[in-house]
Amino acid sequence: MAELNRTVRLAQRPTGLPDAATWAIADEAMPEPGPGEILVRVDYLSLDPAMRGWINAGRSYIAPVEIGAVMRAGGIGEVLKSNTPAYAPGDLVHGMLGIQKFAALRTDSSEPSQRMYKIDTGLAPPQTWLGLLGLPGLTAYFGLLDVGALKDGETVVVSAASGGVGALVGQIARLKGCHVIGIAGGPEKCRFVVDELGFDACIDYKADGLYKALQGALGEKRIDVYFDNVGGPILETCMTLLAMHARVVICGAIVGYNDSSKIQGPRTYLNLLVSRARMEGFVVFDYADRYAEAQAAIGGWLRSGKVKPLEDIRTCIDNFPGALNDLYSGGNFGKLILKP
Amino acid sequence: MAELNRTVRLAQRPTGLPDAATWAIADEAMPEPGPGEILVRVDYLSLDPAMRGWINAGRSYIAPVEIGAVMRAGGIGEVLKSNTPAYAPGDLVHGMLGIQKFAALRTDSSEPSQRMYKIDTGLAPPQTWLGLLGLPGLTAYFGLLDVGALKDGETVVVSAASGGVGALVGQIARLKGCHVIGIAGGPEKCRFVVDELGFDACIDYKADGLYKALQGALGEKRIDVYFDNVGGPILETCMTLLAMHARVVICGAIVGYNDSSKIQGPRTYLNLLVSRARMEGFVVFDYADRYAEAQAAIGGWLRSGKVKPLEDIRTCIDNFPGALNDLYSGGNFGKLILKP
Repeated sequence: MAELNRTVRLAQRPTGLPDAATWAIADEAMPEPGPGEILVRVDYLSLDPAMRGWINAGRSYIAPVEIGAVMRAGGIGEVLKSNTPAYAPGDLVHGMLGIQKFAALRTDSSEPSQRMYKIDTGLAPPQTWLGLLGLPGLTAYFGLLDVGALKDGETVVVSAASGGVGALVGQIARLKGCHVIGIAGGPEKCRFVVDELGFDACIDYKADGLYKALQGALGEKRIDVYFDNVGGPILETCMTLLAMHARVVICGAIVGYNDSSKIQGPRTYLNLLVSRARMEGFVVFDYADRYAEAQAAIGGWLRSGKVKPLEDIRTCIDNFPGALNDLYSGGNFGKLILKP
Repeated sequence: MAELNRTVRLAQRPTGLPDAATWAIADEAMPEPGPGEILVRVDYLSLDPAMRGWINAGRSYIAPVEIGAVMRAGGIGEVLKSNTPAYAPGDLVHGMLGIQKFAALRTDSSEPSQRMYKIDTGLAPPQTWLGLLGLPGLTAYFGLLDVGALKDGETVVVSAASGGVGALVGQIARLKGCHVIGIAGGPEKCRFVVDELGFDACIDYKADGLYKALQGALGEKRIDVYFDNVGGPILETCMTLLAMHARVVICGAIVGYNDSSKIQGPRTYLNLLVSRARMEGFVVFDYADRYAEAQAAIGGWLRSGKVKPLEDIRTCIDNFPGALNDLYSGGNFGKLILKP
C-alpha cells in the first residue's frame, strides 16, 4: 500500500477556543511536487499562540488561513524529492510546511513569512530550529534588542516567562547583565524560570496581588523594558511601574486570542507620558533579512550553555487540536512542538 | 493707599471640575523681593489643560500645587525691582509667575519647569511668548518633530486642532508638506482650522461617525503621525487607521483631566503590532535646553506669515476659574491667556 499523507485542515472558523468542529483531520494521497517544488517529510511542527489569529476571517498582519486549507504552521523537515536545483534530497529545511506529514511546496516565496531556508544541525538539533533558533527565538531576540533597545544592566520584566518567547527574552536579558523578573502561571513554572533559567525573580500571576508582588521584586528599581506577550491586566499593571524612558514591547496578547472582548486597552497608558516612555509593536517577519545574524548569536549562546532550550514536544498529528489549546490555558511548558 | 497684590490660591482639591470652593481669590500685600529675587508685574498668564493635573494630590510629572499656595501658572511680566545682576527693571521675562498680579521670585531655578528667561519682543509680542513661543508652541514643536519624528509629506492627524498646541501642530505639518487632518468640536472651529490655518480637512467630533469621517478624509492614506491631546474614543478610533510604522504621540488626555474614570485604555492598541507602530509620551520640560532653537524656528515662521498665532485673551484675574473651566468644555478658541 502506498504511503499516505495525513493533514489537519481548517473546517470552520471557531468563535472562542477552537474545538473538534474547527478541524478536519484525514488521510490523503501523498502530494506530488510540481515544477520548482520540493517534497518534504515533516519532522517537527511549531505550535504558536499566534495561530489563533491566523484562523480568524479578517486579515491582521498576515492573510487568514482559508477554509479547507491545511492549517498553516512553520516546521522542519527533510527533502525527499526536489524539482529545483536549490535543494537536494536529504537537505533539512525550515518552511511553512503546515500541519501535515508531508508537504509539497515552492522554495522561493518572496513573502517573508513564507521564506524557506536550510538548517544547520551543527548549530542546533532540528527541533531547536523551531524554538530558540526559530520564530520564538527570533521574536525574543529582535523584540528585546531592537524594538526594546535593551541596554546592559537595565531592569526587564517579561510575561509568559516560561513560554517559547519569554524564556529566551529573560535569558538574553540576564546575559546582558540585566535584572530580570518573569511573570508566569503557577509555582512550578515560576520555580523553573528562576532555578533553571536564571531569572532573578518570577511572579505567579495566578496568586493574588500582582502589583504588590511586582513592586516587591522591583524594590527601588523600575521597569526599563516590559516585554508583553499577554495583554490584559498584566500589561496594565506593568505600565504603572515604568522607569523613565521605558520601552513596552507589544509582542502579542494571549489573553485575547480566543475572546477579543478580553482585549482591553491599558487604562494606565498615560504612564507613557509621565515616564516619557514608549509602547511599540512589531512582527518578527519584518526581520527576515537578519534571521541569520540572530541565529548565529543564539546558536553561540546555546553551544556555550548560556541559554537553555525549553521545548515541550508532543507526538502524533492527531493531537494537534488539544496541544494547540494548551497554549491558551498555560498547559505548555516552553516552546510547544508537534512531532507528526 | 499702597498698591495691593491680588492672588488666586488653591483652597481645596476638587473632585471633578474645579468650582468656587477650589479657589481663594483675595487682595494681599505687595510681595517684597528677597535676596536674589526679582519683583515682576504680571502682564499675561498662560491657562493650560494640564493645570487640572497640577492640583491633584498625587505627583505626576510635576509636584502638585500645595493647598494654600498661589496657583502655578507660566506667565510674562515686566521686572519692577531686581536683587540679582542678571535682571534689571524693564526686562520682560517668562517664568512660573503664578495666578497673581505681582510675583516675587528667584530667577535661577535649575528645575526645567521653573526656568526663567528674558523674552525678545522683536521676535513676537509678549502674549505670543505664552502661545506659539511658549509651552504650547514648544510642545507642538518637539512633540511633532522629535517624538513624532515627522517626515516631509506624511499624513498627520491632530486632535484639539483649534487649541493652543493642536493649531501649531497642524500648521507645522503643513509647512512640511504633510496632509493634515484636524479633529475639533463644532463646525465653527472646524471651518477656522481649514480656512484660516490651512489644514486639509477638519472633522467635527461632536457630529456623528468619527471613524467614517476620518476614513473619508484619509481616502487611500493612513495616519503616519497621530498627535493626541484628548485620549478616549478619539484616540481609540485613530489607532485603527494607522499606517505602517506610525507614531502616536501622547501629549495629554483632556477627556480625563476632571474625571479620571473617563480615562480608558485604547482597546485598539494591538494595532500597534499590526502596524509596527509606536505610542510615546513626552513632557515638554525635558526639552528646556532646546527651547531657543524652537523659538527661533517658530518666530521665523511667524514673521514670514507661515504660522498664525491663535490667542484667546481674557481679562481680570477674578475670571480665572471660569476661563480655566472653558478649557475642559471646549469653550476656548486657541491658546487661552489671562491678562490679570
